[in-house]
Amino acid sequence: MSSHPDLRVDGERLWARLAALGEIGAVHGANGERGNARLALSDADRDGRDLVVGWMRDLGLAIEIDAVGNVVGTRPGSDPAAAPVMVGSHIDTVRTGGWFDGNLGVLGGLEVVETLAQHDIVTRHPISVAFFTNEEGARFQPDMLGSLVYVGGMGLEDALDVRAADDGARLGDELARIGYAGSTPCPTAVAPHAYVELHIEQGPVLEDEGITIGAVTGVQGISWTELTISGQSAHAGTTPMRLRRDPGYVAAAINTGVRAIATQMGGTQVATVGRCEFHPNLVNVVPATVTMTVDLRNTDEMLLQQAESVFGALCEQLAAEEGVTIERRTLARFEPVEFDASMVDLVEATARRLGHSTMRMPSGAGHDAQMLARVCPTSMVFVPSVNGLSHNIAEYTSPADITAGADVLLQVVLAAANG
Amino acid sequence: MSSHPDLRVDGERLWARLAALGEIGAVHGANGERGNARLALSDADRDGRDLVVGWMRDLGLAIEIDAVGNVVGTRPGSDPAAAPVMVGSHIDTVRTGGWFDGNLGVLGGLEVVETLAQHDIVTRHPISVAFFTNEEGARFQPDMLGSLVYVGGMGLEDALDVRAADDGARLGDELARIGYAGSTPCPTAVAPHAYVELHIEQGPVLEDEGITIGAVTGVQGISWTELTISGQSAHAGTTPMRLRRDPGYVAAAINTGVRAIATQMGGTQVATVGRCEFHPNLVNVVPATVTMTVDLRNTDEMLLQQAESVFGALCEQLAAEEGVTIERRTLARFEPVEFDASMVDLVEATARRLGHSTMRMPSGAGHDAQMLARVCPTSMVFVPSVNGLSHNIAEYTSPADITAGADVLLQVVLAAANG
Repeated sequence: MSSHPDLRVDGERLWARLAALGEIGAVHGANGERGNARLALSDADRDGRDLVVGWMRDLGLAIEIDAVGNVVGTRPGSDPAAAPVMVGSHIDTVRTGGWFDGNLGVLGGLEVVETLAQHDIVTRHPISVAFFTNEEGARFQPDMLGSLVYVGGMGLEDALDVRAADDGARLGDELARIGYAGSTPCPTAVAPHAYVELHIEQGPVLEDEGITIGAVTGVQGISWTELTISGQSAHAGTTPMRLRRDPGYVAAAINTGVRAIATQMGGTQVATVGRCEFHPNLVNVVPATVTMTVDLRNTDEMLLQQAESVFGALCEQLAAEEGVTIERRTLARFEPVEFDASMVDLVEATARRLGHSTMRMPSGAGHDAQMLARVCPTSMVFVPSVNGLSHNIAEYTSPADITAGADVLLQVVLAAANG
Repeated sequence: MSSHPDLRVDGERLWARLAALGEIGAVHGANGERGNARLALSDADRDGRDLVVGWMRDLGLAIEIDAVGNVVGTRPGSDPAAAPVMVGSHIDTVRTGGWFDGNLGVLGGLEVVETLAQHDIVTRHPISVAFFTNEEGARFQPDMLGSLVYVGGMGLEDALDVRAADDGARLGDELARIGYAGSTPCPTAVAPHAYVELHIEQGPVLEDEGITIGAVTGVQGISWTELTISGQSAHAGTTPMRLRRDPGYVAAAINTGVRAIATQMGGTQVATVGRCEFHPNLVNVVPATVTMTVDLRNTDEMLLQQAESVFGALCEQLAAEEGVTIERRTLARFEPVEFDASMVDLVEATARRLGHSTMRMPSGAGHDAQMLARVCPTSMVFVPSVNGLSHNIAEYTSPADITAGADVLLQVVLAAANG
């Protein structure tokens, strides 16, 4: 239970900050949508960082910028020996990003701090608001790079040497160019006492279920495979079906096959073919090669391995039957992350106490929280995404849901920082 | 029976002409392949036309260029009232064309004429060697445009107003630019007495069966449909399978579905998905839209209609099940063409008399011959394509098969021109 159970955020102030940050790298849609393009370490990202750091300074936070550009603003606690309770997320976006993805976790954190300041409330643990470099991975791979380096999961030098997918720029050089190559050592010397991240769901479940707050239990394991299927290009009219070695047919059978795998396994298993490219891609030519990707996710590592195994056998069977070759390349593989049970309970109980409908749910997307979970008790607070949209300038969450999520964040932080 | 049953072509001379024409717009592959890019009415096409017209002139042919750029070179016969026996094809190529597609029918025709001239043989009917404008359709749509206009199947002005797919150039302007806007009226005032086209098979059947000469019975009917499938773009991790409306899945189910249609119908039915494009085509995003094409062919119009009907029902069923919309657009629709029975018999009997293995077969690809079949008795002589390849710089037919095909052409022409 929080020491100030009736304390609430100022939803309008939070919304105004979301709108102000949304003006930087703004992208306007044909139907009035207002989105953002602030690729990591671009000029727009610098401008966004400058705005948020200015707000941190206005709130009197002690600002540290580390060697990979992560920014942490800290409000002191009453116990000088206590590690901070950290809230945060990221402010970089994909090329067609929205106002909320990432930004909500950071600006929600500032709103928590401002609410406490306004009411002269001092917590035992300090409270840190962080934004991490290059969460999206839209410009530099891997995604969640800043938080990964922050917790010691990737070497600093390796991270600084990463090259941009678009223009080949070196991450370390871009960091210096925009003035965010900081002096605080990274990985962090002090693990947070706890970490809580407020985020939009980026999926349709909360809206579909009519629920306001998701208490996030962990992050699905991810298995990304790229397949290059090579057959025999042939004339669509002159080549009898029995003489075909058609990689397009095999790609299609894999697509319907992984759908069947996910449907039959049920539970949290999902399977997606998001990329598919035919070559030469002509109406009257059996393709020579097809490149495609398969994205498999599950919250249970054993079940994810089972899905991978059935998928692999399907590829081998189809390759043999059609006389094509299939090269498989792993693009990404992350084991599921389970969040700290007491932190998940705290989020759920807090949401319920505040009168919000709530459900426990895994995150289907990756978040900085999964990196922080390696070093401290962690959970996340999800709010609904209208139509499940994200990474889309039509991304939207209602002001009421934004406020509800920030209230839950505030009360969770109060409980954790005084616990 | 021919009046000169033992007369044979000079295979080396024919091969040398194929090689010389192949130097114009030459494309060289990494593995020594030698192909051509002579898009219709390009500079390379002009240079190729100039070379072939020069050869026609050297052989003393009377050259006529018609208003759509078709070129006909005629060797007189003994009967001034007799219509010519026509041989020919086209010399334009696709962007990655070979030495043989089209060129063989034209240069094989010149070889027939030169062989007759060398032996001072005069036929009763004149013999015309023709090459038709824009057979490939790689630059201007529709394909087989020149022969279509030649037989009155498309208005001259409509043809001249066609715009190039690449640079928007007007066909009539390009014709004038390269100097091939001729003065002979088109459509032709005089239908040929008969038309025979020597062509590579462009498919694997002759090679697979170990047969040298195909006596072509007709051309498959063609049904091309473009599908635009619209669903709901969604995050691959956060969207449960039950909430998906995935156009990529539907495209895949259509691909495997049309394979099943062709396999179950058997006979000459083929079905091909040659083009397939995902949008936005990202590994972790359920696509918003997929565009794909379906190419259905059969030699029997009723069976082709049956295939179209089952395909249409499949689309409707899948759209309803997945909650996507499917727009269907017909890109092309041609009924099957049946060649003249006596001409097919003549090709088959001639091949057999010359000691070549032979089989009757439909053409899976479109050819100028199917247009000429509207106005005169027509057939085609097919020779094997190594690995069934065509529209590919690795297209190849052995010199022995080229010579065999030209010998059959010579003897068929002799029989038709003296009959």
